[in-house]
Formats: sequence, structure tokens, C-alpha cells
Amino acid sequence: MILENIKSPADVKKLKATELDTLATEMRQALIQKISRCGGHCAPNLGIVEATIALHYVFESPKDKIVYDVSHQSYSHKMLTGRAEAFLNENKYGSVTGYTEPNESEHDHFMVGHTSTSVSLALGLATARDIKGEKGNVIAVIGDGSLSGGEAFEGLDNAGEYATNFIVVVNDNEMSIAENHGGLYGSLAELRATNGKSENNYFKSLGFDYIYVEQGNDIQALIAAFTQVKDSSKPVVVHIHTLKGKGYSFAEQNKEGFHWSAPFNIETGVVDWGSGESWSGILSNYLMAKIKADPNVVVIHSAVPAGIGFFAPQRKEAGKQFIDVGIAEEHAVALASGLAKGGAKPIYSTHSTFIQRTYDQLSQDLCANNNPATLLITMSGADGMNDTTHLCIFDIAMMSNIPNLAYLCPTCVEEAKAMMDYAVDQTKCPMAIRIPNSVAHREGEFDKDYSKVTYKIDKLGSKVAIIALGDFYKRGEAVASELAKRGIDATVINPRFASGVDAELLESLKANHQVVVTLENGVTAGGFGQKIATFYGDASMKVLVKGLKKEFYDKVSFEDLCKSNRLNPEQIAEDVTSMLS
Amino acid sequence: MILENIKSPADVKKLKATELDTLATEMRQALIQKISRCGGHCAPNLGIVEATIALHYVFESPKDKIVYDVSHQSYSHKMLTGRAEAFLNENKYGSVTGYTEPNESEHDHFMVGHTSTSVSLALGLATARDIKGEKGNVIAVIGDGSLSGGEAFEGLDNAGEYATNFIVVVNDNEMSIAENHGGLYGSLAELRATNGKSENNYFKSLGFDYIYVEQGNDIQALIAAFTQVKDSSKPVVVHIHTLKGKGYSFAEQNKEGFHWSAPFNIETGVVDWGSGESWSGILSNYLMAKIKADPNVVVIHSAVPAGIGFFAPQRKEAGKQFIDVGIAEEHAVALASGLAKGGAKPIYSTHSTFIQRTYDQLSQDLCANNNPATLLITMSGADGMNDTTHLCIFDIAMMSNIPNLAYLCPTCVEEAKAMMDYAVDQTKCPMAIRIPNSVAHREGEFDKDYSKVTYKIDKLGSKVAIIALGDFYKRGEAVASELAKRGIDATVINPRFASGVDAELLESLKANHQVVVTLENGVTAGGFGQKIATFYGDASMKVLVKGLKKEFYDKVSFEDLCKSNRLNPEQIAEDVTSMLS
Repeated sequence: MILENIKSPADVKKLKATELDTLATEMRQALIQKISRCGGHCAPNLGIVEATIALHYVFESPKDKIVYDVSHQSYSHKMLTGRAEAFLNENKYGSVTGYTEPNESEHDHFMVGHTSTSVSLALGLATARDIKGEKGNVIAVIGDGSLSGGEAFEGLDNAGEYATNFIVVVNDNEMSIAENHGGLYGSLAELRATNGKSENNYFKSLGFDYIYVEQGNDIQALIAAFTQVKDSSKPVVVHIHTLKGKGYSFAEQNKEGFHWSAPFNIETGVVDWGSGESWSGILSNYLMAKIKADPNVVVIHSAVPAGIGFFAPQRKEAGKQFIDVGIAEEHAVALASGLAKGGAKPIYSTHSTFIQRTYDQLSQDLCANNNPATLLITMSGADGMNDTTHLCIFDIAMMSNIPNLAYLCPTCVEEAKAMMDYAVDQTKCPMAIRIPNSVAHREGEFDKDYSKVTYKIDKLGSKVAIIALGDFYKRGEAVASELAKRGIDATVINPRFASGVDAELLESLKANHQVVVTLENGVTAGGFGQKIATFYGDASMKVLVKGLKKEFYDKVSFEDLCKSNRLNPEQIAEDVTSMLS
Repeated sequence: MILENIKSPADVKKLKATELDTLATEMRQALIQKISRCGGHCAPNLGIVEATIALHYVFESPKDKIVYDVSHQSYSHKMLTGRAEAFLNENKYGSVTGYTEPNESEHDHFMVGHTSTSVSLALGLATARDIKGEKGNVIAVIGDGSLSGGEAFEGLDNAGEYATNFIVVVNDNEMSIAENHGGLYGSLAELRATNGKSENNYFKSLGFDYIYVEQGNDIQALIAAFTQVKDSSKPVVVHIHTLKGKGYSFAEQNKEGFHWSAPFNIETGVVDWGSGESWSGILSNYLMAKIKADPNVVVIHSAVPAGIGFFAPQRKEAGKQFIDVGIAEEHAVALASGLAKGGAKPIYSTHSTFIQRTYDQLSQDLCANNNPATLLITMSGADGMNDTTHLCIFDIAMMSNIPNLAYLCPTCVEEAKAMMDYAVDQTKCPMAIRIPNSVAHREGEFDKDYSKVTYKIDKLGSKVAIIALGDFYKRGEAVASELAKRGIDATVINPRFASGVDAELLESLKANHQVVVTLENGVTAGGFGQKIATFYGDASMKVLVKGLKKEFYDKVSFEDLCKSNRLNPEQIAEDVTSMLS
């Protein structure tokens, strides 16, 4: 086996052409084997095996610096830079992350997980090189889906006026996560159709030199192209046409399904997505019903429509009432604002980690204009994705401090539906709804009107009041049970709104309570509980704010996070009890 | 006079060609007259007079919807849509804002002030029109400087695949605020040089039809072009070549200086920028000295280099150590991260209101990677720009809750220099420094080490502790004076860090103090004081958090803001006193 002897890129350079092809086959087998067991980004990595081999054959990493966009396509890169064992030895599968990670290797320069960043980051390295009078190539690798993100454009546009070595490899696999969206993809298609000769050339229009490689899974063609641009003294784009999912028929056929895949059966291609209710299924049904009931409803997504269960059949069924803008979160928020202003009923959904791209659009385009769009912030909280680059724990702090925006946190599916019903039809202000990872149900009636910040006392006790936000509501109930064991009959409150305080209700607690404890599934810095603590600043009420310490957690399990942040019900009960006089 | 009889766009349509030219002359005179008295966006508005006349001549606003980017070029639009008096009658000068404002007129659709938003917002209107089966043209007007912003690209790229009426007018005056930056401007220049025929066509590469108007200040040429695209059923760009500052020689010659101008003498062209020390002057000198002392220092700005006093001579002197990326804040932050990773010492500066564009880049590209870039957040606080669209009061809440980022708030020029000296040379983490509007000086020594969150007790008293952040430090001292009159010897603390708490110091206050009051020049929601209130949640210490209520204030004077938020020293002293038992 060749792959197990690749200890560094220098070992790749020693191989003959046929050996390079064998290496590609071995790498592909290792990828399929590992991902079928552990899950991971499958189809994107299968498509870029040959390009990665060619890059390391031609360039001298780490002196030449390769920067991966999103970096979910860096599995092959890891195999060739001293980390092959993490893909060959089952016991070592956990020894590398799914993204580039400077702590793992000198060949990785940034920890990245959001898209469209590689050009700007790499241009920083190139500029530092020039300022310091150093030598070497800087190569940004970007998937074509990432080209629709504004940050990538800003980077390309700025790079286009530099007169220095800067190489951008555009890995064009004709896909984003789902189909590509945007006029740009029309001209990429023209470039593919004309073997790179079309006049409509986005990269040239930004000042880049340009070469096209039709056989983007042919190692020798890629080596020739990379050799041609090596040590170039001008910015140049190498546009390579690859096959997403290459070499694994099920992934080639179902590119979207295998973009990120749960563990799967290699023989049958059946992915084990787990069973049971999921928020994507719930949202898919809910949103489709809304679309059918009201022709003014428009559902918007930015490239990950599976997040709301909108796969190809649902997208087709929704017709014009569904818009996938591609990876373009900023535009999505502004578009939603314009739609609401124009009298439609837009519902934009994205994961908590990706709404981070839109702080200014939320503030300026949407909230300053107070247009009544609805936002669904999915996967929120610490119990879902736990890569540093995909944490979903900052949205409360980011969103709840923007004026005019109501940020609602439902405690269960039934309440989420009541909130969505209200948000979509109202015309008072923009409303965001925090959709958690876990699916919970509660019985009873839920309010139909969310026009005013009001908390709800679900159980009135005394001494201790537990204000438990959103999906931490059930945890709040568990805290109450723990306190009951200690002889304390705690009040349990569902605050519903992360974005404001219910002064009247909080005031009323003073009579009969000594301690208020707040619970939220996110960082406490800038978040919900701190508003409650501030409210009681002039009172004798003691306040305990429970949530996560502000930190970039890296692959920490939810259980460990809860324990170290003292979020387990018995820990909270203990802390509360010690505050009672 | 024709202008004073223009009550709505219908009146424009009645005019003959020569009358339209006369109207343009009258409008230009009114613009110069008003801006010379009140200040405002001078050169951009002078350049777009003819295009505005032609737009209203050809289209039927408000049925046809015109959406202005930044909307600082909407003065002429206001004149032609029932608001001429606000430019002709000195007593009415204050009756309109400097940006489009839906509350003023049905011809204004959005309140906007940040750039690069018009395409996305207008596309929302166009999509709502189509969903609802309505008719009419939607026109996004965008200045070429705004094209470098990622949001504009995302909007254009998405629009490029629509098969519907959508018109984008690109007002190409060959300038951003300073010179244009980005490879795109090379191809715009080619389009100008070839009368629109160059192959390098950014707009076509995104799927747009395209027409070019060389005589962008010729009303009849513009009318012909707009008539040609009216009711188009495909997205089309009308690229018009205009002269920034047209008709006022001083503005034509000094386009950057007259982009936004303070009041000026019409005869001499001398602008009254006021006298005395300014932060832009201080930063200019400081940064130039840094550049000269250390070849690894790279100063980055995003299109408003005047903000750090880098005008043409300074930019030339700084050479490669100064980078203006154009309007591309996201890229600027990622570029700074890459530069820091590559061993350079990047210093990126932008106004508080514009750093909002970069929440995700701060979090992901910079802070998760913990690269030691320095950020200078200028114009911060409520005492500077007070348009809703340019408020500088949200940066503490936005930035101080991002892990790894130290957000420093100097109390005076001397402390700011000490903090910048430390930040630029350290390699521990990204550091941001909040530069206020007002220039203050203090005597004494300032720390040279800001590696750890430590507050500083400048005066130790008892009972009441005043923790006064950044430029509100002097206000804190004034509160202490007020309290002294009431017989209270208050402690005065300079916290220096907005981004964390000094637990040891706060703990020590418990012994001898009953009330802590925090002061910050920004919204309190998610901000500094709420962290202090949370810290004391389990203690008997009372905490009063002073700052601004979360709100989109609109042209409220600083004095009124302070009064209504009870931020005047005597008000604060009163509130504190009432909390003492």
C-alpha cells in the first residue's frame, strides 16, 4: 500500500504517474471506509482527491501555503500531510478533526468552517509574505458553491489588483450543497461548455488570469496546470471541473445526500440518518402547509435546504414560493426585508452558526426598517454541532440585543408552531424563532399572540423562581424537581422572549422570592440571563445566570459542557440552595 | 423657477428638454447652497442630478420602485418627490434626513445608510411584486464604490438568475469615497474605455443584460437608456458614467474631500472642518510613526481612510504598508487575520457602525483562530453620528461577547496610545480598541501591559464604586464630584476592558461598598455593565447599569439622549443615592 508510507508531501513527489493513480484509489477507499463508519463530508472529499495529490506533487507545502475554503474538503490533504493513519487505522479515526486545524499540522493554516473565507485569509498570507520579503506560493482552494458568498467576492476583487503570486483553485463540481444558485453559475457552465473560452468570465472581470482544466479528476492534467501557474507573479484562477462523489456510485448519484453523510452501508448506499422525529421533518411539513395555504408566503434558504427538510421533491412542490439563494446569508436577510416591505410573507431559515454572517443585515436592512419578516434559527444550542467552527451558542447574544427584533424561544414543538403562526401573519416587527436540536412536546394551550414581551408563570411557588428559556425549559422543570426534594417549592417560568424583560412579572416575584435562576442554551455573555440580573440590580433579589461560559469549545460533548458549566439539574439546585439565606 | 413647482414626479414628465436642463441647473444650485450651509454628501449628489431627473421622467414612482444604495445620493430624488422646499427654503432645511426615509415619502422604500444593500432590498420588492401578481418596474441604484461590498455581489448574483423585470443602475463616477479599489474597477474602466463593449463584463458574467451610457450627465441620453430598459422582462444593468462633484469646480477637483463635506464657502471652496485636535489627526500621526518604525506594520482601511487621517499624501507615504480594500469590511477582517498569521502586524480601522458588517469574520476568521490583529473601532459612542443608519452605539454589545477578543476602551489619548502600542506588538490574541469621538487628555502613567483583564482603581473611596468605561470615564469623575457634594466619597474605577470582568477587584469592593454603578457610551443590552450586574448576582451588592436603552434612535442630540437615559452626572448621583440604604 502506498498511502501508509506517505509521511509528508515529499513522499508524494517521489511517485511515478501510475503510482499516483494507485494512491488516488487507495485514498478514495480509505475515505469511503472511514466516512461509512464515522459520518462526514463524503462527496466533496471524493471529488477533490486528484487535485489534492497534484497540489502536493507540484507545490512545496508548508513553504507554499494551501488554504482550504470551509475546509471540509481537506480530508485528502490531511492524508498526504502526515495524518494518513487517521484514515487508515480505525483506532485513530478520532485523531483528526473534519476541518483544517493548525494545532494538528504545520500544513494547516487556519481553523475554518464557514464558507467563502479562503481567498481573503490566503491573501493575508500572501501580503505578509510580500511585506516580509519572503518567497513561496500561496494557494486558496475554493469550492464553486462558496463563490456565491460575499466574502469570497470581496477577497477576489481585492486580490485582482495585486501584482503578486496568488493562486486560486476553483473546484467546480457543479454543485453547492444542493444545486448551485446564482447567475454566476450560468457563466461557470458556459466556461465548462467552451473549455474555458467563453467571453463571460467572472474571474477575468475581477482582474485574474485564468486557466481551465476540464479533466479535474486527472492527476496529470492537474499537475500540468499547477506547474504552469507555480511561481506566477500575477493573481491567477485555475478552474478545475471535478465530479462530486467521484468513485462511489451512490454519492455520484445523490450528491446532495452525500454532501455530509451519516454512517452508511457501503454496499447498499443506505445512510443511517437515525429514526424518530426531527425538526427538519417538522419544519418541512409545517412550511409546506403554510405555502399551500397562503400564496404570499415565501420560504428562503441559503444553500442548506435539507435543514428545513426541503429536498428536491419539496422544492419542486413549493415552486416560486421557495427560494434557495445559495450560500449568501447576507443577501437572504435583505431579500426577506424587501419581500416583507413589498407585502409578501418571507420566512428565512438558517442554522444558528450561519446567521452570524448577517449581523449588519439584521440590524440595518431588516430591523431598522422594522419589516415583518420571520426568521427561523435552526440547530440552536450546544447539543448539536460541536466543532469550534460550527458552534450554535452565540445567536442569543448576537440577536437579542438588536432593537425591534423579537427573538422567541419555544419550549416545544407545539409552542414553536404557535409562535410561527403568529410571526408569519403579523405586520408589527421582524420576529426570529429559535429552533433547537432536540424535539420536545408539551401538552396544553399556547398563546396565539406574541406582540408584547410577556413571560409566563407555569407553576407558582415561592422562594426560588426558575426562568428557563426555550429548550432549557425541561431542564428548568428538572431543577424544580431537584429543589422539591430539598423542600423548596420553586416557581417555574417560561420567558418565551430572549430579547426583552417582562418588568411587571419580574417585579411581582420580589414579594415572595429570594433567588431567581435563569437557564439558557448558549453563552451567558451578552445573553438572556444577564438582562434579568441587571433588572434586579437595585433589588435584594439574588440572581444566578446559568448557561455557557464564553469560549470557543472544540468538540466538547454536551454532557461534558453541562457538567463543567454546572448546568445539570442537581448542580443548579445545589448552587441555588447555597444562595438561600 | 421650475424646481419650486415640482410637487411630484408627474410635474417632471411635463417638462420640455430645455426645461429639464434648467431644472438640473436649479437643483445643482440648491444642492450647493444647502450643503454649503448644513454640510452633507456633496459630490455624490452633484453627480447624479441628471440621472435622477431621467429616472423620474421615464418611470412612474412610486408604482415603479426606485431603491437607492446607501441613499446618500437621494437628495435630488427628494427634490423631485414633493420635498423641494427642504432644499430651497432655509427654514425647512431640517425637514428631511440625509438618507431615504419611508416616513417622509411613499417614494422612499427603505431607510438605509450602509452600502451595497440596494440590489438585495430591491430584489425583495421585485419578488414580492411577482408573487402577488403585480406590475411595475423595480430599479436599484448603486454607486460603483458600493459594488465592492459582498452584499451587493450576493444580490447581483442571485438576481442574475431571475427571469423578471429588475433594473440596476450603476452610477459609475470612477470613485468610491476615496479612489476605487478592487480588480473589478479595472474592468469598469475597460467598459468605459470601450463604450461598454469590452469582453470583461462583470455584470454579464452574473447573468445580466447590459447597456452603457457614456454621457451619464446628459438627461436625453439617460432618458433614452431608461426608456429602452423600462418594462424589461429580464434583469438588466444600466451602467452610467457620471462626474462626481459635477458643476462645482472645487468638488470636481477634490472629490474625496467633498464626498461628505462640512459647511463650506461657496466662493473659495474652503470647508470649515472645525479646528482643534481630532482623533483622525492623532491616529494619522500615530499610525504613520508605527509604519516608519516597523516594516511589518500594515494599516488597513475599508474605503474611508480619512477616518484615520490617511489622505492622499499619507497614503502615498505609507506605500505598501497601507491597504485600502475598498468597501469590503468582511474581507478586511479576514485579510487582517491572514496577515497576522503570516507574521505581519495588521491594524484595521473602521467606524463603529461599519464593523457591524463583520460579526462572523471577527468570530470565525479572526478570533477562533486567535490571530493577533489589532482593530481600531473609530467614531464610537452616541456623541458622533446620530442618523439611525449610522449609530455607533452597538459595538460593545456586538464585540465584547466574542471569545478571545480583548476589547479595550481607553479613557484618553495617552491611554489609547499605550493600548495601541501593546496591541500591535503582542502575539497573544486579537485586540480591538474603541476610539471615541471626543478627544480627552489625562495626566499620569498608563499601563504598558494589557495581557490580562484587570480594572484599575484610580481613587479608592467607600460605599459607592463608579466603574466608568472608556470615554465615559470623565463622566464617572463628574458623578464622583456630584456624590461628594452629597457627602459620599465614591471609588472611581477605570475598567479598560469591555470584554471581561476583573473578578478579584470586583470581589474586593464587597467589603466596603453597597452600590456599584457602571457607565458606558453605548446600549446596555448585551453590553459591559450587564456583566458586572451578573457578577454580583449572588451578593448583596446593588448594581446600577448606566448607558443607552436598546433602540434605533433617529437624529436625537447627544444632550437629549443623555437626559432621557438619565446619564447626566447629577441624574446618576441622584439614582445612586436613592439606592443607598
